[in-house]
Formats: sequence, structure tokens, C-alpha cells
Amino acid sequence: MSGRQHFTGSRVPDPGVRALVATPNRWQRWLDVEAALALAQAELGMIPDSAARAISASADLRRLDVPRIERRMAEMSHPLMPLIAELAEVVGEPDGGWVHWGATSQNIMQTGDVLVTRDVHRILLRSLAGLLSVAADLADRGAEVVVAGRTHGQHAVPVTLGFKVAIWLDQLARHGTRLRRLEDDLLVAMVGGAAGTFASYGARGPELQGLVGRRLGLGSMALPARTIADPFTEYVCVLGLLAATGAAMAREVRTLMKPEFGEVREGAPPGSIGSSTMPHKRNPQLCDHVLTLSARLRALAAPALEAMVQDHEADGAQSALLDGVVADASVLGGDLLAYLVALVSGLEVDESRMRVNLALTDGLINSEAVMLALGEKVGRQRAHGLVGEAAERASAGEGRFADLLAQDPRIAPHLTPGEVKGLLDPSRYTGLSATLARQTAERARCAAAELTTEHEPAR
Amino acid sequence: MSGRQHFTGSRVPDPGVRALVATPNRWQRWLDVEAALALAQAELGMIPDSAARAISASADLRRLDVPRIERRMAEMSHPLMPLIAELAEVVGEPDGGWVHWGATSQNIMQTGDVLVTRDVHRILLRSLAGLLSVAADLADRGAEVVVAGRTHGQHAVPVTLGFKVAIWLDQLARHGTRLRRLEDDLLVAMVGGAAGTFASYGARGPELQGLVGRRLGLGSMALPARTIADPFTEYVCVLGLLAATGAAMAREVRTLMKPEFGEVREGAPPGSIGSSTMPHKRNPQLCDHVLTLSARLRALAAPALEAMVQDHEADGAQSALLDGVVADASVLGGDLLAYLVALVSGLEVDESRMRVNLALTDGLINSEAVMLALGEKVGRQRAHGLVGEAAERASAGEGRFADLLAQDPRIAPHLTPGEVKGLLDPSRYTGLSATLARQTAERARCAAAELTTEHEPAR
Amino acid sequence: MSGRQHFTGSRVPDPGVRALVATPNRWQRWLDVEAALALAQAELGMIPDSAARAISASADLRRLDVPRIERRMAEMSHPLMPLIAELAEVVGEPDGGWVHWGATSQNIMQTGDVLVTRDVHRILLRSLAGLLSVAADLADRGAEVVVAGRTHGQHAVPVTLGFKVAIWLDQLARHGTRLRRLEDDLLVAMVGGAAGTFASYGARGPELQGLVGRRLGLGSMALPARTIADPFTEYVCVLGLLAATGAAMAREVRTLMKPEFGEVREGAPPGSIGSSTMPHKRNPQLCDHVLTLSARLRALAAPALEAMVQDHEADGAQSALLDGVVADASVLGGDLLAYLVALVSGLEVDESRMRVNLALTDGLINSEAVMLALGEKVGRQRAHGLVGEAAERASAGEGRFADLLAQDPRIAPHLTPGEVKGLLDPSRYTGLSATLARQTAERARCAAAELTTEHEPAR
Amino acid sequence: MSGRQHFTGSRVPDPGVRALVATPNRWQRWLDVEAALALAQAELGMIPDSAARAISASADLRRLDVPRIERRMAEMSHPLMPLIAELAEVVGEPDGGWVHWGATSQNIMQTGDVLVTRDVHRILLRSLAGLLSVAADLADRGAEVVVAGRTHGQHAVPVTLGFKVAIWLDQLARHGTRLRRLEDDLLVAMVGGAAGTFASYGARGPELQGLVGRRLGLGSMALPARTIADPFTEYVCVLGLLAATGAAMAREVRTLMKPEFGEVREGAPPGSIGSSTMPHKRNPQLCDHVLTLSARLRALAAPALEAMVQDHEADGAQSALLDGVVADASVLGGDLLAYLVALVSGLEVDESRMRVNLALTDGLINSEAVMLALGEKVGRQRAHGLVGEAAERASAGEGRFADLLAQDPRIAPHLTPGEVKGLLDPSRYTGLSATLARQTAERARCAAAELTTEHEPAR
Repeated sequence: MSGRQHFTGSRVPDPGVRALVATPNRWQRWLDVEAALALAQAELGMIPDSAARAISASADLRRLDVPRIERRMAEMSHPLMPLIAELAEVVGEPDGGWVHWGATSQNIMQTGDVLVTRDVHRILLRSLAGLLSVAADLADRGAEVVVAGRTHGQHAVPVTLGFKVAIWLDQLARHGTRLRRLEDDLLVAMVGGAAGTFASYGARGPELQGLVGRRLGLGSMALPARTIADPFTEYVCVLGLLAATGAAMAREVRTLMKPEFGEVREGAPPGSIGSSTMPHKRNPQLCDHVLTLSARLRALAAPALEAMVQDHEADGAQSALLDGVVADASVLGGDLLAYLVALVSGLEVDESRMRVNLALTDGLINSEAVMLALGEKVGRQRAHGLVGEAAERASAGEGRFADLLAQDPRIAPHLTPGEVKGLLDPSRYTGLSATLARQTAERARCAAAELTTEHEPAR
Repeated sequence: MSGRQHFTGSRVPDPGVRALVATPNRWQRWLDVEAALALAQAELGMIPDSAARAISASADLRRLDVPRIERRMAEMSHPLMPLIAELAEVVGEPDGGWVHWGATSQNIMQTGDVLVTRDVHRILLRSLAGLLSVAADLADRGAEVVVAGRTHGQHAVPVTLGFKVAIWLDQLARHGTRLRRLEDDLLVAMVGGAAGTFASYGARGPELQGLVGRRLGLGSMALPARTIADPFTEYVCVLGLLAATGAAMAREVRTLMKPEFGEVREGAPPGSIGSSTMPHKRNPQLCDHVLTLSARLRALAAPALEAMVQDHEADGAQSALLDGVVADASVLGGDLLAYLVALVSGLEVDESRMRVNLALTDGLINSEAVMLALGEKVGRQRAHGLVGEAAERASAGEGRFADLLAQDPRIAPHLTPGEVKGLLDPSRYTGLSATLARQTAERARCAAAELTTEHEPAR
Repeated sequence: MSGRQHFTGSRVPDPGVRALVATPNRWQRWLDVEAALALAQAELGMIPDSAARAISASADLRRLDVPRIERRMAEMSHPLMPLIAELAEVVGEPDGGWVHWGATSQNIMQTGDVLVTRDVHRILLRSLAGLLSVAADLADRGAEVVVAGRTHGQHAVPVTLGFKVAIWLDQLARHGTRLRRLEDDLLVAMVGGAAGTFASYGARGPELQGLVGRRLGLGSMALPARTIADPFTEYVCVLGLLAATGAAMAREVRTLMKPEFGEVREGAPPGSIGSSTMPHKRNPQLCDHVLTLSARLRALAAPALEAMVQDHEADGAQSALLDGVVADASVLGGDLLAYLVALVSGLEVDESRMRVNLALTDGLINSEAVMLALGEKVGRQRAHGLVGEAAERASAGEGRFADLLAQDPRIAPHLTPGEVKGLLDPSRYTGLSATLARQTAERARCAAAELTTEHEPAR
Repeated sequence: MSGRQHFTGSRVPDPGVRALVATPNRWQRWLDVEAALALAQAELGMIPDSAARAISASADLRRLDVPRIERRMAEMSHPLMPLIAELAEVVGEPDGGWVHWGATSQNIMQTGDVLVTRDVHRILLRSLAGLLSVAADLADRGAEVVVAGRTHGQHAVPVTLGFKVAIWLDQLARHGTRLRRLEDDLLVAMVGGAAGTFASYGARGPELQGLVGRRLGLGSMALPARTIADPFTEYVCVLGLLAATGAAMAREVRTLMKPEFGEVREGAPPGSIGSSTMPHKRNPQLCDHVLTLSARLRALAAPALEAMVQDHEADGAQSALLDGVVADASVLGGDLLAYLVALVSGLEVDESRMRVNLALTDGLINSEAVMLALGEKVGRQRAHGLVGEAAERASAGEGRFADLLAQDPRIAPHLTPGEVKGLLDPSRYTGLSATLARQTAERARCAAAELTTEHEPAR
């Protein structure tokens, strides 16, 4: 992502992910890990208590000389050493000598970045819960609003607006479950040393890692090898799944908003302009941006998978690749959810156009209902043939579907004109649409509630 | 995949996935669903018992006229109707009229394909269990075999072969968990009708779907809407994760097999030929094929994600896309695991070359050990500087690392030559490599056991 | 691709690519290269004339014992050696000893596969020429057929059907140019030996390669190194571009075919069935399959790019990856074009629905025309504001757009009601749509002609 | 890309692409297009000369109130209108009324972005020329430096360092050709109006577009339809090809830099630090970053292809997607080339390790040479068998390859021990490596020269 601000940015609140993945916050999180490491080492008697206290007290970016760090970064060509050196200097001798004791830069950075991801994750869960909530309301409101069900773009059978929204909810709830399931593998501290063998910490290494995790609210990595990246890739894949559902939602709204459909409309704030040259335009700006964000986010699954293919005991190219991909996926995921909340909560519905569209095929949309009723009398295959014939003739303009059915001597003995009329009423053939809408809305609300309970790190 | 047979095919047993996803088996599975549907409908009094029994008895591809089905397929341009028509004819009147009662083709096909996937899934789980088992053995055998740990391609600190294998095991076990977690969402029957509203079945639709699932050993789809595809996409993503680990394994072996490394070798059956023109060649044929399979499999995540973006209440383009992607991913996943089992179980290890390579940096690989020991005396930063200086001089050819350390007047007071020598012994600085190898092997064996217990469909 | 036959397969003729990339044809092509190599070597005095003649005469798969080759393939685990051995045996001693003289298997296979690709390429060019031709006819026929121009899904300004088709033609013609441009780099013989240094052929190696190429109708690879794969990857990317245009075409038709649009329809052969349960359905089967094919084909660009990242002087994993990707892209590209030809040539147009849709916004679609006319009088910004206000009021149901404009005292002095009426006539505001349609059709026909002239291999 | 600065950033000069794609420069380029449009319209008598002059004079971002533009951007939710409004105000009445006359925002933005891309393109061409030049020098220097040629990771036959570099040059030169070929389609002005029909400009629209292009140094878009995006996608694909070659280069260096190979090393500036914990480390920082950049860049081909699938006459979601992808690809491409120049120009070569590695197989690397010499006496197949046998015995430790050959009674009559010794000398079996290296270097220098001649826009 080029980092450009989107022109609709003012319409949707910034979810706060950008600030989390930016350098200052990452540096602070790395410092937090150095502090936790020192305190845990003191707890285990590996370094003096006083050193740990001093390190912890100084591990605050506001107390460090950032320009000096940046200068040294350029000289050293190393992503962490200048920060450590600065921290050690601020701590001063002799305690400064215990900064980063036995540690590997990558461990500090990865654990710090996991803290960033934990915070991103919380935002995403909250946003997803919000989306589930506003969409559940829409599903309830639209539970009985009849609308054409379309398969392969063609009218099939009637459904309800609430049923359509339930399709989103069902997927979104599952994405929430997926996100929560990831936590145990993803939100873990890594203090295994240069190659993950705990060599620099001795036999108490795993205990140390556990303590660091506990101090940071994280679990402990089962095998802290540096080439193990699958939880991060899985995270990106799950965000990709979420993005795909988001695109499906946005594309549906975008289509139903076309003048030929006219069934829904994106809300538009007063003063907004669709086109510089066509004054009447009201464009699907939110939908379009969701689609763009989704495509970018989905496109990250491939490099995230590629990044897992790492060389020997650590592979800087691939881990940097994955770090960048996770950061971008975080920002895109945050924006995507924020836009979806705005889109769904502001959606305008035009029930009269829905009714007009339902009538477009003049009853053909209920052909299945007729076929089944007739089939009970004459058998399924034969009914399919008879109703299909009438449908074809109606499409060819030889008469109205209802009349052709009622007048067919092979059908008339089995269905009265009144029965045919009833069978062709879309509102009588929505099946369990309303029930499913309400049930799924209820299920979604439960799912939303579960998303916002705090994660208990695995032990 | 072009379906071409790979030239190493005879070296690795066919896992049997190709036959499962081929048309004859799919047709049989669709027939199985028609049978289960009829029986379940009879159970609910929707169709006569006798019809259900007749349908069930005839729903066997061997009893149908396959060439006639194929001919009609060409005439009708429909993927299922000819099969149904043939089934109905074989059943005969009047029972044949109850074939496919109230059903939507896509429901039958999707549920049948889920049965295919369930069988594929079992093969994959068994193969993965087998891989975990042979790799766990290798981890145990290599638990104490010291080998250079390399980060960013450079010697870092020593590890053991078993530790390296544990890195694979840790990931593979997690992939197993992921595959099992998918089952509840993936292995479900779908009997919701044309748009998923159960309109053609009435209020007992969900009950019917549950019964069909139970007869087929499947769960019941929460909301049987046809545009809900995320479990299939997730399946492809998880196979992509597995493929990425597979590639990491194969690339590692391929690299360690290069003459400059020489630490391991793929087994080669007698009679096999590396090159038509270079008689001495022994090529990493299994590794290479794993890498090829992995890249193809990983490349399916993108279209699987794209396929979730579906239009209205059903989208034939995207669902056909996903069907094809799932089928290809199944075949690729089966082959990948089979090749990995062959690769790992036949791996040859050359411990002498491992020792030679460990000595390549003449002690530098243990520089961290020296730095930490020295750091306890003079502080971490200063120790890093002193050891780094000696390392640089050693690299520049000014002397052996051990001598430069021992002779440095800033170091000598703190470390005796004997201590230096001990600190430079790779076998003394493998940390918890052996323990982690054995623990992870044990964990992997438990994971393998869990993969082969039968799935209990969710209710 | 799982190799499954698509259920619409009978509606579209097989372009013949599958047979080209299948094993028997590949083997024959490899034999062709062995023959050309022998003859060229004889020409240069490298091997006896009689041997070359004997080899050439026997290099016919029909003369070889295919089951024996397959048996040896399994024993040797080598893709070419068994074929060579069989050829040598059929040639007999002493001439058989000169088979494959100095050659590297991969050179033979790659050059043979290039011959396959050359034949695939000819089919694709012919199909593309056919597509350009039928689409050019449609552009001409629709040059003046007015239809709503839609931007971001909303009515913008009128265009014509021919203009819409011109958008396809413009892209397709460019894809044709791209395909032809590739030929010089792609269609080349490779006879550089094991690492591409011509070591086994001596100083006359390049000359030999040139002669082999000439005999096969190919150019000569500038640097026959085995890790040079970019022309193949580029080929896949260009087919990806073609696939993207194909998807745009199919999605457009699919959308315009929805009942809410109703402007065009896929042709459907008599007897075909849309749905097993909804007798009235007429589904966009061709569009859907094009979309599926396109997604699969586009998804090959990523592994094709990845496959270029090769190790040392040859990398079997990546080259096999690319071979498979090219084969699949060939099949997909062939099918895609065949389906597009069927789609475009059978397209049904409903001009009356186009007029109905043009009227949907009751004049708003021409708001730009009004704004520009008014702008000449009152300035662009002000006109934009006034017309936008009227548009908003019309959308809000406060009156018809034409009336609101005519009655606005700020507008009335500048535009008479008659002028407003004229400005709101869609057929008067199609700009150069018709001209562009016809020009582009003409350009497309020239492009089509250029696609079917034979390629002259570069020297 | 998260926009984070890479920690090695100070080692490589910023190529300047970031600034080009940033908002201020884009806005200026959009203003440049407004100015060119006004001047061209004046030239055609469409707007007053004075207005054009005034607009042109004010179309300078330094003269506009940027904070006010940003405020309005938030209110209007439109990416261009606020800039136009500000420009119009600065121009003042009445001339301000002619700003953006008849124009469509997207036309202005796309043409402005094309100007950005033109400038990016120049940087990329210059960088690529620089890379060709430094790599050509390396190819010349290494033309005769013998090194093991490796296929599938195994020693195959000797090559030279220059030959290896030639493989890069051959590809890079072709990428240069590809980049230049794109110019005619890519670097074009677009002034077709809302749907590309020139409706707002009348019959002189194409002429106007041509004039605007000429003023901006661009060609004229053949059919200015807004859904035509293939040249941009092709651009991203070509950069993807370049990125793939870059990754191959970086991976090769990274591998050859491993201690087990030791043949080359990345240069490292004094003061740089490899590891915080392992003082001896010298990491492939440049290689790793090239690999990361390459993976990100290659991953953009998929969304670039997806972005071509656009809806109706304009599709904001997809065009914004492509804009973002092109911007990111530009930045990544610029960085990639800059890092490659640094990598190649600083590469350190260790010829002694190359000789050591050549001897690793104790002559087996020349087995082909022996087989061919022997084959001339006893036939190819038989020679392959005999030499293969000796190779296998040598590998099994039964003796040295040279001795086993010399002592074999089936070989001895045909080859003296002295001949065998000569045949096993790697430096005598490099084929045309040196010649090819020098020829390709020369070809690359020509290619470099062609990259820096200015593009003449197509008319």
C-alpha cells in the first residue's frame, strides 16, 4: 500500500491500526520486551535486580534520543542494535551492561511485533463485533422484506433481504471464530536465542520465555525456532477470508445500487460529490473502496505463503517479507472493517423497487413452487417438463405465465387458476428466509459478544 | 495441473486422491446423495417408502447407462440432470418420479463433492500422520547429532539435526490440528434448495438436511446458502500452509545435499539415472518434485479467495472455480505428502560432513558462547566489541580465532586458553537442541495419533 | 486443472490444445528434436551421415515400443533416457550410438516443448483472429445502437453498443500484438548442453544450434543457459492479460443479461437446460465458464513468476513448475478463446430494453450535456451547481428533471424548454461512439489478419 | 508496502520514486494536465486564450492553498474537485469558469498519473542501464574465472563466473526491451470524457487529446475508454519479470556467500553489524532485501490482472486498485534496481574458494568430457555406462575417479592416463563460457545505451 490517504477517508473513522504498525510504536514495543526480559531474568537470578529495575525504568522511547538512534541505524545498518545501545547508555553503567542479556535481536523484534499484532487484533475483533452487530440489526429489519433470489444472475426463487444479510453474518461469525482460534499460536513470546535452542540461557530458557510472555500478556512459543512462521501466514490467510466476504458484501450492494436494480443505496453525507462532470451521480464510494482494500488484502496471501519457505535456521529475506505483509494486512484489515461498518450501518433500502423487480419475470420466479405442487400430482420429471414449456412460451411472449399454466389442459385438472395465482405469489414462497435471518442474527450477536472478551494467553 | 504423470511417479505410491476426484467417483457420490435424500424424505413422510427404497437400490453407477448419460450431457448442457434422468428411468415409474424431489442440482453435487473431500481428507490425515511418524523417528535419531545452525545463510550457533527436524514437526503437527478443526464447517450436508431457504421442503427442511447428513456421515450446514464458500477456501489455504512447510523441508534437504554441504542425501533406488549426459549426477528428484507441487498448491490460495466473492444467491462461475481449485488442491496435497514421506523416510545422513562443516569457521560459530562468558565479566556491550574484533581479525586471516582470543590482553585475564577451547567446542553449545528434538518428536507422535481417529460429524 | 470435462463442452469446439500438450505429442516432438539434432550434426560433420539418416527415419513414436519406454521410465526415474534408449535400439548398431550425441536431456525436452508451444501459439492466434473478427462484426452492427454508459455502476452518459464492443477489440488487438512480439524470444531452439556453454559441441556449438532451429522452424536461443525462463513466464503473463479481458467481456455480458438489465442474452442451443428445479432459468453458462477459465489462467502468473527464480545453472523444481504452468496456461487459453468466440458470435441483443434502461433516470443520464450547454453561458462551476441541484431534486422526487431545469429561473434565461428537451435526448449525446466503434472494428480486422501470417523465425 | 524505511536504507541511494508517487507531486501533475488541457482547448478555439493563459499560470501547487484543498477533500469526498475549485478560485472570474472545461476528473488524474509513471519509468530505465553496465563489467572480469556449474544443486560441468553473470545480463537486457516496448501504449494522454466518447468535446475531441498529449510529451490514447487498463497491468507484469530476475541474482549471491561455498561476498560498509549476539556474522543484507522486494513486487501481478476486470464504462474499485498497485510497483521497482546495483557493484569474489569447490568431486564434474571422448571410440550409450560405473564407484569410495577410469580395461585401450588427466581439468571444459560472457556483456552495454535515449511519443 502506497500509504496514500483515500479520498473518502473523512467519511470513515480511522481504526487506529496505522499508528500501531508505525516505527515509533514498534520501537516502544521492542523496548517493552527488553524491559520484560530484564525483569524476568532478574526473577530467575540471571541478572541483578537493580539492573532489571533500571532497564525497565528507562525502556521508554520518550526518554531516548531518537535522532541519535536514527543516525546510528544508518551507520550500523542494523535494525535493533542502535536502539539497544541507546537504551544501555541511558541506563548507564554498570546496569546498562545487562541490557539485551543473552538475547537475539530477532527475538526482541518478533515478540515486540507480536505485541503490536495483539493490539491490532483487538481492534479487528472489536470492529468485526461492531459489524456483526449492525448487520444483525439489518437482518432483523429485513427478515420479511421479500426480494428476488438470483442464481447465476437470473431470478430463481424469492428470498428476503434478511436472508441475504444472514449470508454475510454466517461467514463473518466464522471469521471471528477463526481469528480467536489463532490466538494461542500467534500471541506468544519468543526467547529462544540465535537459533532457538535456548543456548544462551541454559536449561531455564523455556521458563524464562514463559515469564517474559506472562509479563507481556502473551503465551510461550512451543519451539522458538526462527523459521517457524505459519501462525503469521495463517493470520494473513484468515484476513484474506474476511476480505473476500467483505468484497462479496460490497459487490452485492454495488450491484443492487445500480439504477437497473435500485434496491439499496449507500448512504452519502451531505456535500459529497459523485462526479465533477455529471452532477446527478451518486457513486458507490464505500463499496468501491472496500473492493479495492479487499483485493489488496487477498493478494497478500500468496507472499505470506511464500514467506514460510525459509532457509536453514533463520532467513532474513523471508521473515522481513512476512513482517511487511502482516503489517500491511493489519492496516488493510482495519480499514476494510471500518468501511464495512460504515457501509452496512448507512445502507438505504428501497422496498418498492424490490417489489417491482420481483414482478420482472411475471411469476416465473415462482416456477419451482408450481412445479412442486404439480409434481405431487403428475410426478417431478413430467411437472418439470410442463412448467418449463409454459415458462418458455411466456419468455417467448406467447402469453402470461399464469394464463399459460391455467389454460394448459395437462395442468388445469390438477391446479385451479386460484391455486396457480397463489403459487405465483413471491411472498408465499420465501421458505424459511425470515426464520433463518433472525436465527442467524441472533447467532451473530452471540459471536460478537465472544469477540470482545479478553484473550487469556495459553500457558 | 496438466494431469501429466511425473517421471518419478514409480518411486512414490499413489495416495489415491486422483481416483476420488475423477468423474466416475463424483457421479457415484452424487447418486449416494440422491439415495440419502430419498431415504430421509421417506423417513419424514415426504415421499413413499417404496420410492425411497427403489431409488436407493438403483443409485449405483454400475447399474446406469453411462454412455447414454454422456450423450445427454452434451445435449442438455447440464452437469446433473442427465444423471438424474437416467436414475429415474432405471427406477421406473411411478417411483422414478420421486427422484431428486424438491432438490436443487447444486445441493446434490456439493454434498456429493463434500463426500469426496471427506475421503480425500482421510487420506491426507493418514499421510500426514505417516509423515509425522517418520520425521519423529528422524528427530529422535538426530537429537544429538551436532550440525551448524545457520541464520541468513551464515553460520550462527550449533544446533542438532534433531532440532532441525523438530522445526518441521512443530509446523506439521499444527497443520494437522488445522485440518481437523476444519471438519465441522467443511464436512456438512447441504439441502437448502434453490436459494438455500428450504422453500421446496417447508418447515421440516432443516430436519431433512440433518437426516441426509446423518445418513452420509456428515454434519448439517448452518445456513445452506449457495454463496457461502469460506470453508472450502479455508481448506485450500490450510493445504497451502502445509505446502509451504513441505517446500521448506524440500529446499533444506536440497541445499544440504549440495556437494558443498554434503550433509544429507535423498535416497535413490538402484537403476535410477540422474542425467543423460553427466553419469555421476545424483539429483534431488524428490525434493524438486515437492517444490514444484508446493508452488502449484500455494498458487491455488489466490483463486480460492477470489472464488468467495460471489454474486447474489448463487454464482456458477465462482463455485465452479472453487470446485476445480479444491479438486486440484486435493490431488496436489496427496502427492505432496506422499513425496514428503518418501523423502524423509529415505534420507541419508553424513555425520562426518556435518563435523567438517561445523569446523568451517574455525570456532567462530561459537562466538556467542565466548561473548556471553566474557560478558559476565566485562559486560555485554564490551564483550560484543572484543569478541567481534577477534572475529574480524580471524576472518581477515590474522590468526586463528582461538589464539586471538587467548592472546588478547583485554580478554586473557577473564578466560584461560582452556576455557576458550571449551567455549569453542560446538557440541557444548547446542543448548536444548536434543531435548527440544525429543519433546517435539513425542508431541508429533501424539498429533499423528489424533489425526487418524475418525471424525464425528457435528450435530 | 483437474482435467475434468466441462458440462458445456459440447457447445464449443475443442481447439485442439489438450492433444498438443499431452504426453504422446510431447514425446514425438522430443523425437523430432533428436532427429533434427542428428541431421544438423551430420551437416557439420560431427556424426556420420548414415547415422543421421537412420536416426531421423526411426524418430517416429509409432515405430517405438511405448509400453517398454513406460516400463523403463519407472525403473530409471528419468523423463527422457528411456525414450532415447528405445530410439537407439530401433536404430540399431552402430548408428544408434550417435543418438543424442553430446546432448543434454533438458535441451531436447525444452526444444521439443517449444515446438508444442509453437503449435499451441498458432491455435491461439487463429482463435484470437476469429474472436476479433466476430467482435468486429458486432461492433459494426451495434455502432449506432444507443445504450446507457455506466460509470461505477451508475448511469453516466449514453454510449453505443458498438463502442462497448470496441473496448474489447482495442484490448484484444493489443494482446495479439503482444503474442506476436513474444515469438522471437520464445520460439527458439536450445542446444547449449549441460550448462549452456556448448562444451560438448565445441566452437561450432552456436552454429549447430542455429541449424537445429532452422530445421525445426525455430530461431536460436541467444544464450542457451538453462535458468533463463523469462520468455515462458512472459507468455503466461500475456495469456493472463488476455484472460483478464476475457473475464471483463464475460462479466459484462453476464450483467447485461440479468433480468434487471435484459439488454443482451447468451445464445442457448435448443434442448439445453438451465436448472433442474427452476424450469424458466436460462443461465449464462458460457460467461460463467469464461470467468472460471480466466481466474484459473490469471492465477498462473504468480507461479510463472516464481518459477523464474532458479538456482545455479539449472533448477529442476522451477523448470518443471514452469513447464506445467505453460501447459496449463495453453489449455486454458485455448478454451477461453473458443468460449469467447461462441459467446460473442451467439450474442442476442435486445434494443428495446436498452431504450427502456436509457430512460431509467428520466434524463439525468444527459446531465453533462445540459451542464456544458449551460456552462457556456454561466461558467462551468456554476452550471455544475445548478444542474446538480436540479438532479438532486429530481432524484428526491420533487419533479421531472426536464421540468425542474426548464422552470429554474436561473437556467430558463439561458436554455429554452425545447433546448432542454433536445439536450436530454440520449441519442444526441453519444459523442463519437459510432465512429470509434467502426474505426476500432476496422483496426481489429487488420490486427486479425496480421495474426494469421506465419512467423518467420529470427536468425 | 507499509512505507517503513528499511534498516539498510543508508547503504543504497534513494532512487527518487517515492517522491514522484507521493500526493504533492501527483497533485502538481494533475494541475499540469489541467494547464495543458486549457492551452490545447484555446488552441482549438474551445475556450478563450486569456483563460488558458491564466489557468496555465496558476496551475502551480505552490500558488494554491493546500490546507483548504484538504479540508474540502474531506467535505466533498472527491479526489479532484477540491483541487479544481481551488485552481478556479485562484484564477478568478471569469477565466476560472473555464478550468476543467468538458473534462472528466478521471481523465485528468489518469493523464497526470501517466506523467508520474513516465518519470518513474525514466528512473527505472536509468537504473537498469546502470545495472547492466556494472554487471557487464563483472561478466568481463569473470569471463575466464572457472567455477563449478551446478544443475539441480549438483556439480554438472565447469562454467565461468562471467558466464553466470551473462545469464543475468541476457534477462536484464530483455527486460529493458520490454520496458521500452510498453511506452507507446502506456505513455498516452487520455481526454475522452466521462465514458470515453469525446461527447463533451465534439468531433474535435481526438484532435484535442492529441494536442494535450503533445504538450505533455505523451502520445494519444487510441480509444480513451476508462475500463482499458491493460498497459498498466502489463507494466506491473514486466516489473514482476524484472523482480524475478533480481531474486534469482540475489539468491545466487546469497547461496554462493554461504561459508560452505564461500565463492563471493556482499560488500559491507565499515561499521555495519551483522548480529547483536554473534559478533562474527556478515549477513547478506542486500541480497535479503532484494529478495523481499522481489516477492512483494511479484505479488502485485495478481491484483494487477484482477484489476483489469472492470464493470461497464468505468469501475472505480478496480481502477483505484490498479493505481495503487502501479504506485507500489514503481516504488518497489526503483528500490529493487538500486539495491541490485549496490549488490553487483560491491561484489567480492574469492577465486581460491572457487578452485577448491571445483575439486570437490575430484574430477566427476568433468565426467561428460570423458564420456564424450570415450563415446567417440565406443559409442555414446556404452560410454555413458562405463563412465557412470566409474563415477558410482568413485562416489562409493572405491578409488579416485581418474584412477578408476585409467585402470578400467574397457576404457584404457581408448584413453591414456594423460588423456584422462587432461579431460578431468575443469579449466579445459568450460566450452564457450568466456566468449559468451564477453559477447553478452557487449550486448548488455548496447542495451544499456538504448535505455537512456529519450522516448519519442507515438503519434
